[in-house]
Formats: sequence, structure tokens, C-alpha cells
Amino acid sequence: MRVGVLTGGGDCPGLNAVMRAVVRKGVQRYDYDFVGFRDGWRGPLEGDTTQLDIPAVRGTLPRGGTILGSSRTNPFKEENGVSRIQENLVKHDVDALIAIGGEDTLGVAARLTDEFGVRCIGVPKTIDNDLSATDYTFGFDTAVNVATDAIDRLHTTAESHMRVLVVEVMGRHAGWIALHSGLAGGANCILIPERRFDVDEVCRYVESRFKASYAPIVVVAEGAMPKDGEMVLKDDSHDSFGHVRLSGVGEWLAKEIEKRTGKEARTTVLGHIQRGGTPTPFDRWLATRFGLHAIDAVRDQDWGKMVALQGTKIVRVPISEATSKLKTVDPEMYEEAEVFFG
Amino acid sequence: MRVGVLTGGGDCPGLNAVMRAVVRKGVQRYDYDFVGFRDGWRGPLEGDTTQLDIPAVRGTLPRGGTILGSSRTNPFKEENGVSRIQENLVKHDVDALIAIGGEDTLGVAARLTDEFGVRCIGVPKTIDNDLSATDYTFGFDTAVNVATDAIDRLHTTAESHMRVLVVEVMGRHAGWIALHSGLAGGANCILIPERRFDVDEVCRYVESRFKASYAPIVVVAEGAMPKDGEMVLKDDSHDSFGHVRLSGVGEWLAKEIEKRTGKEARTTVLGHIQRGGTPTPFDRWLATRFGLHAIDAVRDQDWGKMVALQGTKIVRVPISEATSKLKTVDPEMYEEAEVFFG
Amino acid sequence: MRVGVLTGGGDCPGLNAVMRAVVRKGVQRYDYDFVGFRDGWRGPLEGDTTQLDIPAVRGTLPRGGTILGSSRTNPFKEENGVSRIQENLVKHDVDALIAIGGEDTLGVAARLTDEFGVRCIGVPKTIDNDLSATDYTFGFDTAVNVATDAIDRLHTTAESHMRVLVVEVMGRHAGWIALHSGLAGGANCILIPERRFDVDEVCRYVESRFKASYAPIVVVAEGAMPKDGEMVLKDDSHDSFGHVRLSGVGEWLAKEIEKRTGKEARTTVLGHIQRGGTPTPFDRWLATRFGLHAIDAVRDQDWGKMVALQGTKIVRVPISEATSKLKTVDPEMYEEAEVFFG
Amino acid sequence: MRVGVLTGGGDCPGLNAVMRAVVRKGVQRYDYDFVGFRDGWRGPLEGDTTQLDIPAVRGTLPRGGTILGSSRTNPFKEENGVSRIQENLVKHDVDALIAIGGEDTLGVAARLTDEFGVRCIGVPKTIDNDLSATDYTFGFDTAVNVATDAIDRLHTTAESHMRVLVVEVMGRHAGWIALHSGLAGGANCILIPERRFDVDEVCRYVESRFKASYAPIVVVAEGAMPKDGEMVLKDDSHDSFGHVRLSGVGEWLAKEIEKRTGKEARTTVLGHIQRGGTPTPFDRWLATRFGLHAIDAVRDQDWGKMVALQGTKIVRVPISEATSKLKTVDPEMYEEAEVFFG
Repeated sequence: MRVGVLTGGGDCPGLNAVMRAVVRKGVQRYDYDFVGFRDGWRGPLEGDTTQLDIPAVRGTLPRGGTILGSSRTNPFKEENGVSRIQENLVKHDVDALIAIGGEDTLGVAARLTDEFGVRCIGVPKTIDNDLSATDYTFGFDTAVNVATDAIDRLHTTAESHMRVLVVEVMGRHAGWIALHSGLAGGANCILIPERRFDVDEVCRYVESRFKASYAPIVVVAEGAMPKDGEMVLKDDSHDSFGHVRLSGVGEWLAKEIEKRTGKEARTTVLGHIQRGGTPTPFDRWLATRFGLHAIDAVRDQDWGKMVALQGTKIVRVPISEATSKLKTVDPEMYEEAEVFFG
Repeated sequence: MRVGVLTGGGDCPGLNAVMRAVVRKGVQRYDYDFVGFRDGWRGPLEGDTTQLDIPAVRGTLPRGGTILGSSRTNPFKEENGVSRIQENLVKHDVDALIAIGGEDTLGVAARLTDEFGVRCIGVPKTIDNDLSATDYTFGFDTAVNVATDAIDRLHTTAESHMRVLVVEVMGRHAGWIALHSGLAGGANCILIPERRFDVDEVCRYVESRFKASYAPIVVVAEGAMPKDGEMVLKDDSHDSFGHVRLSGVGEWLAKEIEKRTGKEARTTVLGHIQRGGTPTPFDRWLATRFGLHAIDAVRDQDWGKMVALQGTKIVRVPISEATSKLKTVDPEMYEEAEVFFG
Repeated sequence: MRVGVLTGGGDCPGLNAVMRAVVRKGVQRYDYDFVGFRDGWRGPLEGDTTQLDIPAVRGTLPRGGTILGSSRTNPFKEENGVSRIQENLVKHDVDALIAIGGEDTLGVAARLTDEFGVRCIGVPKTIDNDLSATDYTFGFDTAVNVATDAIDRLHTTAESHMRVLVVEVMGRHAGWIALHSGLAGGANCILIPERRFDVDEVCRYVESRFKASYAPIVVVAEGAMPKDGEMVLKDDSHDSFGHVRLSGVGEWLAKEIEKRTGKEARTTVLGHIQRGGTPTPFDRWLATRFGLHAIDAVRDQDWGKMVALQGTKIVRVPISEATSKLKTVDPEMYEEAEVFFG
Repeated sequence: MRVGVLTGGGDCPGLNAVMRAVVRKGVQRYDYDFVGFRDGWRGPLEGDTTQLDIPAVRGTLPRGGTILGSSRTNPFKEENGVSRIQENLVKHDVDALIAIGGEDTLGVAARLTDEFGVRCIGVPKTIDNDLSATDYTFGFDTAVNVATDAIDRLHTTAESHMRVLVVEVMGRHAGWIALHSGLAGGANCILIPERRFDVDEVCRYVESRFKASYAPIVVVAEGAMPKDGEMVLKDDSHDSFGHVRLSGVGEWLAKEIEKRTGKEARTTVLGHIQRGGTPTPFDRWLATRFGLHAIDAVRDQDWGKMVALQGTKIVRVPISEATSKLKTVDPEMYEEAEVFFG
């Protein structure tokens, strides 16, 4: 058996740990061969490969990023994309593909398996934790750690200067990072894309916080939107990739708070540092276990399946089940957090 | 409603976060009063109380340890222990007790509720993650982070000096910390109390590792034991509390490895630093949610119950269910990890 | 002897450590009394005081921020500012003042001592490390650590996505944080206020880096300026406090790089997290020693002096010497770093 | 010019950063060639070399340990050691040697240059910071960070359980790590090799600390000795390498404190984790600058010299000057710290 591996979408701490586990178990237990495809679906599309064996993955467990590179190439948007992939798999003697990626990358894998019989196994990957069917994705815990560390640091400035601090964290469509880091960091208000916010209510939290204690910290997901749609972002605030929008909601909100409360407000946009660096032990553990179970799924020829975490168990679910619906923040969990607002 | 709170057993990052959540939600949502009992069950036994209100818990979210102090006092081993507790609860107008602790502390709470009608709610606490009925306990992720950070650091010495490094981590009866940190840290062998180890097999891993790459790192839980019982520990290696045994299994194993392989071996015993410091974001999140659900259990008068994590949900289970059986490492998980041995 | 203490200007990790050392040594060795003035020079100006004794400073060594609060109030810009301060010192029986602050705060102390006979001792404080007469100021090492950690994290994204990453760090007038964190983080180009940069040269570094290895990281101090003055910042990019300018040079530079090289470029603005959180051990050590020597200067009645680090010694220099001239980056040190550009 | 490089003695974070700087500047500015010698002086002695060029050092800035390996081989203790080295240098066309190491490694370099005309430049390296002529050595700041982080963590256990915690840190002959980490971590007593300690005095500090606040933390350097020489260590406590002595002074002291005060006491021995992991930004900066200046010394043919830090300047001193006398803790600095004892 010769297995191709690719990583697609935004980079995410733990990608290398998945591949290391796949290769270690595949080689040592099942005597498989591996080939790495470069830059997500661009690799099989263009036949761009790289060596992937035990020496190649040695020492990669603690390394963020991906040794295979990544891209957002979608073969269904390329001319003859599917047939070119099929030809390249034949050409490189590849019997099966492990695709590690988010909604888009896995969506391609699901269609390739279901519609064209390409033998794919999926491994879910998203910083944002917004894939269905799995309790968590690796990279999320690392992002929450980076964001919480930043919030911890901002408390001292908030204490010393009596100003409002707005922290913009990742999360275009789901507020998991905002919710977890905001709760862990002791934020006084958490704003998420799932629930349009009322600027006046935010200002009330800000003012009540100033009365009770020291200055407030507001955590806002980059995709959060005000209730009445009055937010006017700068033209250049939208980028195709979507992870640094310097003139985004955080900056806008800080200005609104200043205007409405008269308090000084400052914004910090954490940006890419949330997806970089060494994965936390939790993410290394999850990524490693995903890898071990993905190669077992190959052995079981369980094509079209994706590994997922449910409780402390790794299970398999149809890829399509995981990608058909975004996993947004549970309203009950958000309400739990509201006790700390203000 | 006036609610007493106590923390028992070894300290654990996240204890303060639980209490902060209990008090914030109890005061703001349910208009309850609180009183803190000092040093675990010694507090209600001797009527030793302290103020526990919103100012008392402010700023404690990131602080390790417990503002209430802790002890291993067991009222069932004290003369008239139960009746003294009952009298003190009456004397301080306490309607319900939230007991945050491990097997022993919760065992007392279960008996007090079941046999004597004392209205108790339990919150599980153990660094070792060995309580049944909950996927994880707070403090465990922090301990795994400290241990993994130490293993990460030791890799550089292992690389540069070609010597065997043995890391002894916490875990008297269960190997969870060893398993998680060993896997996350890329250890070449992990030894746990649940499975007696064969020193010769460990030496084979050590030697195969030297051949394949650089020097090996062996992670051993403090409670791990060799197969044939030949381990002779120093007399003073057993202490009543059980967390620093400088002459324990790690040191013994390093000497055996030196003797049998001729390679130099060194031991690091992490000890108390695994249970200290600020809780990780995961532990703050879990501890906070445990606190929020514990006070809901008080409101629901669901006495004798304990909050627990199952998947991403907080549920309630009978305290006795959680304490009747130790949650040891699942043999399948251990076998997963063995692919990385050697 | 009764000694007043105040902290002025932006907050800085280590302020509390200075005060703890001042109070511990002052009380235990010299039997002095202390009083804290709130919010920098606003405190003595308005007679706003707070208790400052051993219990008040207990546990503050690892805490960032300042328990006294801070402000940028300048008594020389207030009506009868000096005489109001003199009256309040008499009113509160204050024999001497220890002023902990940067250029502005210390400048006031120098004038009060030299022109009005107020008995002041200075302790230098600046994140930016730009005060003369001292090798380092506390807070700087912490800021460099935060910035370097961020750069370390960005390397993984740079590796995986082949895009230019621009990191904007603190430093309006001096590039010390940029230089130290850029060198420690392995940046491919470092831009500082002391030397106007040539965008085309930056683009050449960017392109040569892409050829040699993976994607480049550019570290730019917030006060760095292009050679030909063509930078047009957004109107709102200037704030009175000066530490978060979301539309500053980093964002501008990323756009220029994209325009001129055709490579995707992203910006991260670290902002306030550089001045928050627990001080590094170096900063705690320096701040503690500054405090110990400041109270010795009070005992020696060495008014108008400031403590300073020279090598490993703490010395005293006239405050005015330290504040008369900004300590900018030594051109030789910058040239040393250039070997790593590109 | 062809330059050989070697690293000797215990590993130390920053070794790779030195070599990276040496090679980057040597290749790019001076067009030199390099060759790495493996495992300290064993490399030139046995002619064991490895490639050392820009690709070899890429990515090594943040990596602890040494890519060249290390040993404690001393050519003056080997038969015909010097002539074998001279032959191997000729054989590999090596014009000059950069020796990175501590007292022993540099001592060999000094003798080879002074007595045998071998062209050596030295770079000082010691975790312990005990080399003369330089304010600091790289690796020291990292060790102090690891030790301080451990002490910070232990405070929470000390608070919660009212027990004495003894932390044994590195430092066989000099107490710099103990002094810096003890001061930065808020220890209540610091014991160093330079000054024999009085156990009864330590017990007095312990008891006064219990009265004033919570439980005491005692930091003890591994080489500290009691006044009256009554310390009986276990036979196996002495190892040839000297960095893990599990039955050393820390454990002994904890037992004495228990015996004399009746308080429970626990020991943590940090061991090798102090010398592992990524170097701090300060150490990367210092190591990088040492490397840049070492290659300049080669260019200047300034043989027999060692680079050193004095204030913020890198200077050159005769190697023999640095190695002739151990730099022990300045008694004045120790007395400064005593204000925090008890």
C-alpha cells in the first residue's frame, strides 16, 4: 500500500504531529509506503511530491506549520482537475490519500471519494474549532492559549491605566476562540459571530465594570457584527484569506466605546500569532491520535471517513457529515459565560 | 440560601477558578450567601470559616493553589466528627456544602449526604485525572503542560550528550500524566502503574533508540513498578503525602539502565512543580464551568451529586459513582502510544 | 523619615517589584515609613495617597502594572502645580519622594529637586530602553520576550504559506525592542526609527529571502519612517498616548511590499501585550535592585540622583543626565545585525 | 581561510546561535569556509568532522543543545593529544579554531595557543555564569528563567499547604543561578556555595516566614555546604558529571528543617531541565553577538583571545584571564538579597 498525504488550508499547530503519527504507524506496523503532496490539493493536481518517510517526520512533533506546505487550491475549480488528480495518483502509484484540512479541503476529499471513487481518508483541521462531528480540532487549544496569554497580559495595563481594552481574536464564523479565551482570561464581555451585539449593552458592561473594579477587557471575534448593522469597515478590511483585518471590528468597536462612554479605549489584534508556534500538549496528543487512527482507517479501507474526537474516544464519521454544517457556539454555553459580563 | 465551600486534598490549579464561578453565579443570579471553610474538612469540623464573597474571589481566576487552604482531615476518623460538622453547619447557618476535592474529600461528602442527610454537592479535583465518571479533571492539563515542557527541554541534552534521561512524573495509581506528557513530549518509552514494566524491554527500547537517532527519554509515573518486583527503594522513599519521593522509581530505573546497557543515565523528578502555577486555559475553562454547574446543582437541590465533564457537556452523576472506582489508563490508549517506543 | 513613592507614565512590568524592594528595605533596615501617591504626579498634586507598607507590597513581585496607578500628569503644566505639591508633601509629612518613571516623570523630579529643593530620588522606567546613563531599564527584557515569542510563532506561518510577515513592535523614538527581538527571533529585516528605511531595499531583502529559504519576517518599530517621506498614515493613526496605532507603519509597509514584489504580505501589531504580564526574571532582578539602591540613596540624602545599571553594578547619576538625551540604537549594533538581513 | 568550530562541556542554550552567527558572518562577509568538529576536543583529536555551512545552521537560532555534540575530552590527558590535534588541523586544512566552552574547554584552547601556536579564539559558555572577564554567559538567563518559573509554581503549593519547599538549583562552585532565581522568585532564603550556611539560621528564617505570611521557599545551589560540615550525603550522590545528585544538599536540608522545626518540608531538584530548551531572547542575543565578534577576532588574527560582555559592549580578553579564576557571587550582591530573607 502506498499512501499519499496532503495538508490544505490555513496552517495549524499539530499538522506535522498528524503526519508523524501516520508515517510512524504506517511504516512500522503496516509496512506502508508514503508520499507527500505539496501545498494541499495543488500537489496531486500538478504531481508535485516530496519524500515522506520516518526520517522526514523525525523531530516534527513540536513544530508548528506543515512540512508539506499548504494552499487553498480547489481541483473542482481547475480545468480537468479531477482527472488530473486521478492521473497523478496512478503515476505515483498512490493507492490512498489522507487529506488533512478544514471544510474546503475535506469537502474536496468527500466529493472525490463519493463521486469519483478516489480512496480518501480525512483528518479535520481548523484553528476555529468549527467543524461538526468532532468535539475539538487540534490547533484550537494552542490558539486559545495564545489569546488567553495576551488577555492575561492586558489585565495589568487595564489595571494601571483605567482604559478599555478590546482584543480581537480569530473566528470569522464561529466564536469558539473568543468564548474559551474570554472565559479563561476573565474578559468582561465576549462578542461572537453567532449573536449580533448591541453596542449600548457593551457600553453598559464597560461602565459597570469601571464601577465595580478596574478597567474592562472586551474580547471580540473577528467575525462578530453589531445588531443594527451600522458598522462601517474600511474598504481594505476584507482580504481573501481572512486572517488579518487591521481595520476590523475591534478597532471599530473601540472607537464606538470611546464615543459613547467617553473612556479611552485601545485595540489589540492578535492575528497570525494565534496559529503559530509549537502546539500545546493537548493539541499534540489530539493530532497524534488523529494520525494513528487515520492510518487505521486506511488499513480498514474505510474510504470517505474522517477521524473525530468524541469524549476521549477517536471515532470515524463520514467526511460529508463533518463538513455539511458549521459547528457554531452552543447558545447555552454562551449564556453560561454571561454571568461574568460587566 | 447560605452555601459553605471547602477544598480538600492536594492543591490543584483551578481550585480558585471553581470558587470564583460558584460565588459569582450564586450571588448575581440566585442571591445566595457564601461562607468559606478553611483547610478542607477541618473547617466544618472545627467551625473555622472565612469570608467568601465577590471581592474575596476577584482576581483569583489565574491563581493556582486555593485561597481556602487545604488538608487531608477526615471527619470519619475524628471523634464525633459527623455531629461536630452538623453542629457547625447549624451554627453558621449553612444550608448546603460544596466540597471540591478528590477521592477522599468526595468520599466524605457522599457518606455525609447518603448516611446523615448533609446537603452536599461535589466538584471533582485531581491532578492525576483518575476519578471515574468525568472525562477530565481540572489541574491535569496544567500538570501535563509542565511535564511536557520539561521533556521538551530534556531533548536538547539528550541530543547533545548521548545519555539516557529518565523523567519521573506524578501518578501513584494511574499513569495519565505519564501517558499524555510522554506522548506529547515524544518520549521513547512510557511506564505506568497500570502495567508492570520489564526492565530488559526498557533497555531494548533504549538501545534501539540510540541506533536510530539520538539519546532516549523514558517517562515513568511515580507509581510504576517493575515486573518481577525486584525494585528496592530506599526506606525514606515513602511519605504519607506521596508527592516527592526522591529515591523513587526514576532513580532506581536509571541505575538499572546504566548497569544493563552501559549507557550513562540521569533522572529528573518533577515533583510539586507539576501542581503549581497558573492553570492552563483549558483548566480555567473546565474549573469555571464546574463551578457554574455546581451552584446550579445547589439551586436544584440535587444533593449527593457531583459535576462531571462528558464530551463537551457538564453533567451530574452520583458522587459515589465517581469515587467507587479509580479511572486507570485504558489499555488501548497505552497500546496506541507503543508505536512510538524505541 | 517618611518617604512618598509614585509611578508615572506608561505601565511597565517591574514597577511593583521596585516598590516592594523600596518598602522591604526601608522598613526593615532603616525603619522608614512610606506613603503611596496615586497616578503619578497627580497624587502629590491633589494629595491623593494610599497605604504603602509591607502587607501592601506582599505578593507583588511577579505582578505587572503598578498598584499605585499611573498618569501622565505634569505639575509644571498645572496652575500652582509646584506649590500644591509642596503643600501636600508637608501635609502628609513626606520628607522625600521616590519617583519611578520615564523621561517626563523624571524630568519633573529633576526640576523639582534642582529648582525647588524638593527631595527626590529617581528610578528609571521605560519599556523602550531609551533612557541614557543606564545599560537597561526593567520592562524592556519582558517586552523583548513577548515580541520574540510572537516572531517565533510567525515563523511557522511564514514557512507554510510563503507570505511576507511584518511585525510592528513598540519604539517611537528608539529601535531597541525591534533590534533585540528581531535579532533574537531571526528576522530577515529590522527597521528602526534611528535610520530611515528604503522600501526598495526592504523589497530586495524580501525577494532574496524567498530565493534562499522560506518566507521573510520583517520587524518594524512603530516609529520607523521611510527614506523619502512618502508614507501616508491614516488620520486616526496618531494617538496622544502613542502605543496602539493600528494603521501605522506596519500596515503601510505590508501594502508597499505587496505592491512592489507581488507577494502577499500580512501585518501583526503587538501593541499593549508587550507591556503587560509578569516581568521576566531579569526584569524582576533589575527592578528589585533599583528599589534597594533607591532607598539607599534616600538614606544617603543623595537628592536629585537616579539609580542606573552599568555592567552588573547599580550606580547613581544625576537625574538630569539621564533625561537630557534619548539613548538611541548604536549604529554599530545595528550594522552587526545587518549580516542577517535578506 | 578555513575555520574549525567545536563545542565542549555541558550543553547550554545558545551554542547553536553562536555557530549560526559565526558561519553567517564568516561566509557572507569574509568568504571563509568552515568545518565542524564533533564532540568538543574529541573532534580535532580524532579528526571527526561534519559539514558546517549556511544550510547546516539554518533554523538553529532557537534550538537548545549543540548540533556538533559535546564531550569533556581533554587532549592534554590523551597520549600525543596535542600533536594529533595539530596533524588533524593540517589534514583538514584548518587555519583557525573557534572553541566554544567553559573553563576546561577554554583552558585547553589557551594552552594550545600559548604553548603550541595553535590559532584559537574562545567563546565563553557556562550555565553557571562563573567565568571571569564577562558580565554574563549565554545559557545563564535561560537557566534562571527555568528556575524562577519553578519557584513561581511552588508558591501556590506553599500557600495552600503550609509546608517548607526546598528548591535545589544548579551551581557547584558559584551561586549565581540560586541568587538570581531566588531573588526573582521571591525566595525566603538563598544558599550559595560561596558562603557556608548555618542550618539553625535557615530554620529561623523558616519560622519567621510562617509567622509573617505563608510557607517559606528555600533556594539552595547544589554546591552549597553547611557551616559545620555535618552534611552526610549518600554515597551515590557524587557523579562525575555533576548535574543530577538526587540525594544532595536539597534533600538533606529538607530533612534537617523537618527535624529542627517540626514543619513538613519537601525538595524539588530541577536538574537538567535548567540547561535545556530554547534559549531566552537575552541568551540568543548574547550568543549571536559573541559569534559575530568571534569571527571578527579570527579576521583580526587576534589569537588566544576570548569574546566577553562588558556592559553592553562585546570586548576581547586573553582566554587565560577568563579561565584563571572562578567568578563567584559578589558578597555585596548577596547581602542585598538578604533583606528578603525570612
